[in-house]
Amino acid sequence: MKKMSEHSVEDIVGIILEDYEDDRIINKTDLYNQPDKNAILDIVRKLMKILYPGYYRDKTYKIYSIRNNLAAAMEDVIFHLSKQIKIVLRYCSVFPDKTDDELEEYSHQIALRFLEKIPKIREYLDTDIQAAYDGDPAAKSKEEVILSYPGLYAMSVYRIAHELLLLDVPMIPRIMTEHAHSVTGIDIHPGATIGKYFFMDHGTGIVIGETTVIGEHVKIYQGVTLGALSTKGGQKLRQVKRHPTIEDHVTIYSGSSILGGDTVIEENVVVGGNAFITQSVKKGMKVSVKEQELQFKA
Amino acid sequence: MKKMSEHSVEDIVGIILEDYEDDRIINKTDLYNQPDKNAILDIVRKLMKILYPGYYRDKTYKIYSIRNNLAAAMEDVIFHLSKQIKIVLRYCSVFPDKTDDELEEYSHQIALRFLEKIPKIREYLDTDIQAAYDGDPAAKSKEEVILSYPGLYAMSVYRIAHELLLLDVPMIPRIMTEHAHSVTGIDIHPGATIGKYFFMDHGTGIVIGETTVIGEHVKIYQGVTLGALSTKGGQKLRQVKRHPTIEDHVTIYSGSSILGGDTVIEENVVVGGNAFITQSVKKGMKVSVKEQELQFKA
Amino acid sequence: MKKMSEHSVEDIVGIILEDYEDDRIINKTDLYNQPDKNAILDIVRKLMKILYPGYYRDKTYKIYSIRNNLAAAMEDVIFHLSKQIKIVLRYCSVFPDKTDDELEEYSHQIALRFLEKIPKIREYLDTDIQAAYDGDPAAKSKEEVILSYPGLYAMSVYRIAHELLLLDVPMIPRIMTEHAHSVTGIDIHPGATIGKYFFMDHGTGIVIGETTVIGEHVKIYQGVTLGALSTKGGQKLRQVKRHPTIEDHVTIYSGSSILGGDTVIEENVVVGGNAFITQSVKKGMKVSVKEQELQFKA
Repeated sequence: MKKMSEHSVEDIVGIILEDYEDDRIINKTDLYNQPDKNAILDIVRKLMKILYPGYYRDKTYKIYSIRNNLAAAMEDVIFHLSKQIKIVLRYCSVFPDKTDDELEEYSHQIALRFLEKIPKIREYLDTDIQAAYDGDPAAKSKEEVILSYPGLYAMSVYRIAHELLLLDVPMIPRIMTEHAHSVTGIDIHPGATIGKYFFMDHGTGIVIGETTVIGEHVKIYQGVTLGALSTKGGQKLRQVKRHPTIEDHVTIYSGSSILGGDTVIEENVVVGGNAFITQSVKKGMKVSVKEQELQFKA
Repeated sequence: MKKMSEHSVEDIVGIILEDYEDDRIINKTDLYNQPDKNAILDIVRKLMKILYPGYYRDKTYKIYSIRNNLAAAMEDVIFHLSKQIKIVLRYCSVFPDKTDDELEEYSHQIALRFLEKIPKIREYLDTDIQAAYDGDPAAKSKEEVILSYPGLYAMSVYRIAHELLLLDVPMIPRIMTEHAHSVTGIDIHPGATIGKYFFMDHGTGIVIGETTVIGEHVKIYQGVTLGALSTKGGQKLRQVKRHPTIEDHVTIYSGSSILGGDTVIEENVVVGGNAFITQSVKKGMKVSVKEQELQFKA
Repeated sequence: MKKMSEHSVEDIVGIILEDYEDDRIINKTDLYNQPDKNAILDIVRKLMKILYPGYYRDKTYKIYSIRNNLAAAMEDVIFHLSKQIKIVLRYCSVFPDKTDDELEEYSHQIALRFLEKIPKIREYLDTDIQAAYDGDPAAKSKEEVILSYPGLYAMSVYRIAHELLLLDVPMIPRIMTEHAHSVTGIDIHPGATIGKYFFMDHGTGIVIGETTVIGEHVKIYQGVTLGALSTKGGQKLRQVKRHPTIEDHVTIYSGSSILGGDTVIEENVVVGGNAFITQSVKKGMKVSVKEQELQFKA
């Protein structure tokens, strides 16, 4: 049987407060100047409603015209997104010399410029829906794809996050895609570049690294990694192209890894399951692992 | 530094409204005639409470007798499930000639017929709990299995969704299993047929395709795919048996893929880890990948 | 078209009530004497706020001084954690002879002794943050690691759960780590022993079994299994060391499995991707799968 504690609750509060006192990053306590993950995820929810007006509901809006619904959602997104952008810009010391008012105005402008991209994001997502429907015999309708496919949810969040990253917004894009990673098991870094008609079937375990470039009409399956050859260099490798290039009309079956920044998988290549590829593949080739030798014992 | 936006919020609202105007599926805005994902997930939560009366709480019910609790939960499920069934039947044009009243009555009957299946679903889940307890040395009790095993959660949702699918309810089953996929990383299509005493250990990354047939006392590990050989045919392959048959008492270790609609893994077969199997295996065989050649460098 | 149901809702309530009546574990209905999963997950949320005072918000606290915030959170955790510990101790018949008052006092003491471990848990997590930042070129700052890396979330919950397990608290630790498994796709059994500076990159699909022992500065990638060779023995294997030992400064790339309780991966070993290892590896070795034979077809 365990022995008794030597401390009261008050003692332990004191011990933990002391533990907060050195200058480790983990000890930051200035809550209101830090990005608010819940506020950012709430922005994602609002944006899903704007991207798919008939599919994601927001029960707090009881206004019935589409225009009024949209306008209310937009005001909301603008307000909260500007606020979070301002916080992360200050937090990451992006513009140390700007006054508070200047930073506020700048953040508002960035939020507007992001919202202008919504028709482009919707244009891309519409092609992703088409690709899922065309590529999966189990898809009964495009509406089913929108309402239930995790790969489409991951792409929706990635396409939002990628546009924010292109506007040089720090931290927020990654918080968004890691949320989608949690929901779907699909880990796409917001820095990756992904063309139209992209389809991930099943999706769990897919990893798409920061400097990956993917063309159009690409289809990948669960457990595929588009990754780096080695990350031994750590922070010294930051910004270096470490992840592969996948050209148009490539299909990569489940469990395969394509690694390295110089690796180019050219047009119309088909990569079979469980392949481990660290060099480029010429266009139109079918690459597969030489048949596994299986042993059968009675 | 990024340039300013050329548009006001009102401008952007106008641009997006315009973008909603063509006839793409993504633009459907008629919210109240579309299935409501949140309502469907709420039905799943209520059903979990009915399936496991002592394990899943619903704080909104403060009635203390089991009968009253159950009756309240049932009324609730009947109401919301009938409503969502009616919506999806209309939405998918299953009975274009039925009047609104006829469809309402029909949906109510389907919901009742589903609820009649609950004892059968519970009978199956009880065997799944037994299989998890028997198969996992880390399981401390059956209660721990019910309260914490993701594989059991995925099976609970699958067994619900499968019964709805057998009653020809469209869309709702898939929305349910994709929710479980999100929560557990286990992707079971509601169309699959799975016998009693099924156990998935760890579970993340498991994929079980639409036309898979699984017998009794089958055990599979994380990362196992029961999949199609190729989906190149896309929508032309709809309804074709594309996924394997796994007979009674088969064990499949982690990371293995069994592919193809004609592939039959017969009784008592054991498939080792990381195997890639596209042909049938005779009963009682142990199949494994011939030992990997590893290289050791100092 | 499906036929009508033969039963009314009242009939079905009766049928299900009857189904609850035999003595299967699934039928336990005595809710208020069972552990409450939601209460346990709420404790995890409160503890995250205590571990990372500036990163996880709790909107219900509107008190602004850190001391008051912390004291309120601690009172809350003590109250609910003691209550849940008492429930699981009773539920698992750990001290059948203790009176209710004795069990209450004992549970309170265990909760206090757990809270004393918070500085130690924070010390370990601070090293995990450092390891993630140092090991991942895509990490822009340590704050980004705290706010968005799923591997750190999984480790935070594991380090909490592990301390509770060391205090012989049943069930609660596993409920906690399975929650983290659901959120991150990373399945760490609370019984595993993991040293400082542990980093899991991407993380989805990682499995770390109950009796695994891991040293310091270890780095593993998505899809790595540290598992048992066979679980055929089922409950007879309980408490036996079934999972490997990984010494300091080992790196294991994605998709590899290291299996077996006698398997020791010694210091400074690097294991390449997709390796399947069931025997010990001597220190400093680089182990990799002999190059796959790939087939290229035009």
